[in-house]
Amino acid sequence: MSSEQLTRASVEEAHKLIKPFIHETPVLTSKTLDKIASTPRTAEELKGTEWEGQEPAKPVLRLHFKCENFQKIGAFKARGAFHAIEKLKQKPGWEEGGSERAKGVITHSSGNHASALALAATTSSIPAHIIMPTISSPLKIAATKSHHPTLVEVHYSGSTSTEREALTAEVQARTGAALIPPYDHPDIICGQGTAALELVSQVGSGPRQLNAIITPCGGGGLLAGTALACSSSPSSGSSPSSAPKILVFGSEPSHQGADDASRGFRSGSRIPTVSSLTIADGLRTPLGKLNWEIIYERRLVADIYPVTEDQIRSALRLVMERMKLVVEPSAVVPLAVALYNEEFRRLVEREGGAKGWDLGIIFSGGNVSVEGLSKIFV
Amino acid sequence: MSSEQLTRASVEEAHKLIKPFIHETPVLTSKTLDKIASTPRTAEELKGTEWEGQEPAKPVLRLHFKCENFQKIGAFKARGAFHAIEKLKQKPGWEEGGSERAKGVITHSSGNHASALALAATTSSIPAHIIMPTISSPLKIAATKSHHPTLVEVHYSGSTSTEREALTAEVQARTGAALIPPYDHPDIICGQGTAALELVSQVGSGPRQLNAIITPCGGGGLLAGTALACSSSPSSGSSPSSAPKILVFGSEPSHQGADDASRGFRSGSRIPTVSSLTIADGLRTPLGKLNWEIIYERRLVADIYPVTEDQIRSALRLVMERMKLVVEPSAVVPLAVALYNEEFRRLVEREGGAKGWDLGIIFSGGNVSVEGLSKIFV
Repeated sequence: MSSEQLTRASVEEAHKLIKPFIHETPVLTSKTLDKIASTPRTAEELKGTEWEGQEPAKPVLRLHFKCENFQKIGAFKARGAFHAIEKLKQKPGWEEGGSERAKGVITHSSGNHASALALAATTSSIPAHIIMPTISSPLKIAATKSHHPTLVEVHYSGSTSTEREALTAEVQARTGAALIPPYDHPDIICGQGTAALELVSQVGSGPRQLNAIITPCGGGGLLAGTALACSSSPSSGSSPSSAPKILVFGSEPSHQGADDASRGFRSGSRIPTVSSLTIADGLRTPLGKLNWEIIYERRLVADIYPVTEDQIRSALRLVMERMKLVVEPSAVVPLAVALYNEEFRRLVEREGGAKGWDLGIIFSGGNVSVEGLSKIFV
Repeated sequence: MSSEQLTRASVEEAHKLIKPFIHETPVLTSKTLDKIASTPRTAEELKGTEWEGQEPAKPVLRLHFKCENFQKIGAFKARGAFHAIEKLKQKPGWEEGGSERAKGVITHSSGNHASALALAATTSSIPAHIIMPTISSPLKIAATKSHHPTLVEVHYSGSTSTEREALTAEVQARTGAALIPPYDHPDIICGQGTAALELVSQVGSGPRQLNAIITPCGGGGLLAGTALACSSSPSSGSSPSSAPKILVFGSEPSHQGADDASRGFRSGSRIPTVSSLTIADGLRTPLGKLNWEIIYERRLVADIYPVTEDQIRSALRLVMERMKLVVEPSAVVPLAVALYNEEFRRLVEREGGAKGWDLGIIFSGGNVSVEGLSKIFV
């Protein structure tokens, strides 16, 4: 499928299909965080950054947090996985009792997509083969297995991507299971975009309208889906074309080159490999091909901003201590941009002026162990 | 004031007074935690406990969590503090511009009550003197000071209760400020009880009715207030007397004798001193006198159960990892009872039978630093 066929209507259709299976997660606000985000950084804070000695930006920000940490399996990935399964069920051989359906689905992931696909598949009594590296955390392995006592089969591979892909191919050849990749897939992208659809409508039902949404960017499924959801392409009707344009931004850790999308965005060509151990462990992946088309080639994303590990840590502390929410480090990367990236903050000052911006932030997930959190702050 | 004068109507009146100032915090549920709570503990798990070798209890529990971690200042203490201030404002000399009002209020606390009183007083432009031990965490001192740049004055005392009380008396004599103690006070008790009023009504507006509520118990303000809120005393009308009886339970850490209320409850006399360094740092206080009258002498609390430090840690892990919420260790003590105290679980099995119980749990607060959390789990 070409990316051109994907529009806002595709995301709206995805939403109709998955609504019975997912949570409409709450949108939370925090006066404390609005105040911090709307306070200019000090000269001291800008020391040692690329903005040292420059006039600090003075943005006015009202933040609206879409809490996908409360989503099923603890992350937005449930949306894409349920959508992929519902789309499969519309294909020949995938009806109840069908021969293809009995062969099941397969994916390789050590993270939230594995758990999401295991849940989505077994909810429709479809077998799920999950390839996970043997070094995966026991919590994640247990979470993946927990969805069904017999229909979920975990296959352990070595930790390199070559080993993982070899085992995936082997299991796929043996079982005939359908491959559902974690992000570079139209059904996954449209499923992930449904979080933004809800966010826009939830904020819009109050006195405010979103000016922009910023999401984390790893493989790019959530960012591309959000971009489609906010695009002005023909809609099936629920979002009138007269609605004001909502800008879409991405955010990434800069640690060890994990800002591949941001760098690709600036250079004009996709960077296909990443090798980073950023604490934002959901964002260690390079941008997918289809995702790149939507994000960059179709110009549906306005920009992508990087943040440092310390900025991620600092944003995570604020969310835990002030908002009382547990989110995973990847989830606070967009908030770190809003709080600490002067380039983004100047844009908000320039575009939003004294009235400021209502900014939607997608808290992508909350799957982190208390030991994992402890390691970040000790 | 005698405790006899306090009834459910007193809590309902308190609720009317403080409603403009507090959040109606959400009530959350978790299928995962219901499942864990409704699974009998294994023989292995009971090893080394007083229930070793006994048949594990088989309770059916549906848990309803009242999230006071989302309350203003991050804890239920805002309720009592606002109520105390609103009641003062009805007294002679406390009208706007009044001579008593100018003298302000005073309390000694290193915790949530200090922050709550500072917020409540300054919201009505009333000066607040807060006595805090010099060893208080910088986070708590900063939180207390943050409510107003000039009206909040923090006075630092030594860490013993003698030093603290001496300084309180000195500042009180010098300023004429009105003392608002943290729990042993009718206005505080009735304010804290409003959380339970909301919880009963929020759950009751759905398909379920609460059978019981369990709260943490330190000084006893929250527990006594909850007991009044659920008592069958004459009501002002919003809760018909035909409503089914809701049982009220307390919960405490057993570490180093912090289970003073539970032991007092069993022996029939209040234990006036506690010296414990339990991780549930909000529950290191002995039960107050007025609180004891309501809880024990008036028989408004059905029982109080102790839990161990490991059980508190384990409950905290579940709340953070499964519910994605940040709560302070004191807040999960009631959940630890529901999950791990076989005496309580047998009672639920016996009374609730196959239908089980809808149990309200008050998550009392969420004021804990990420460093504090890290220390608990490293």
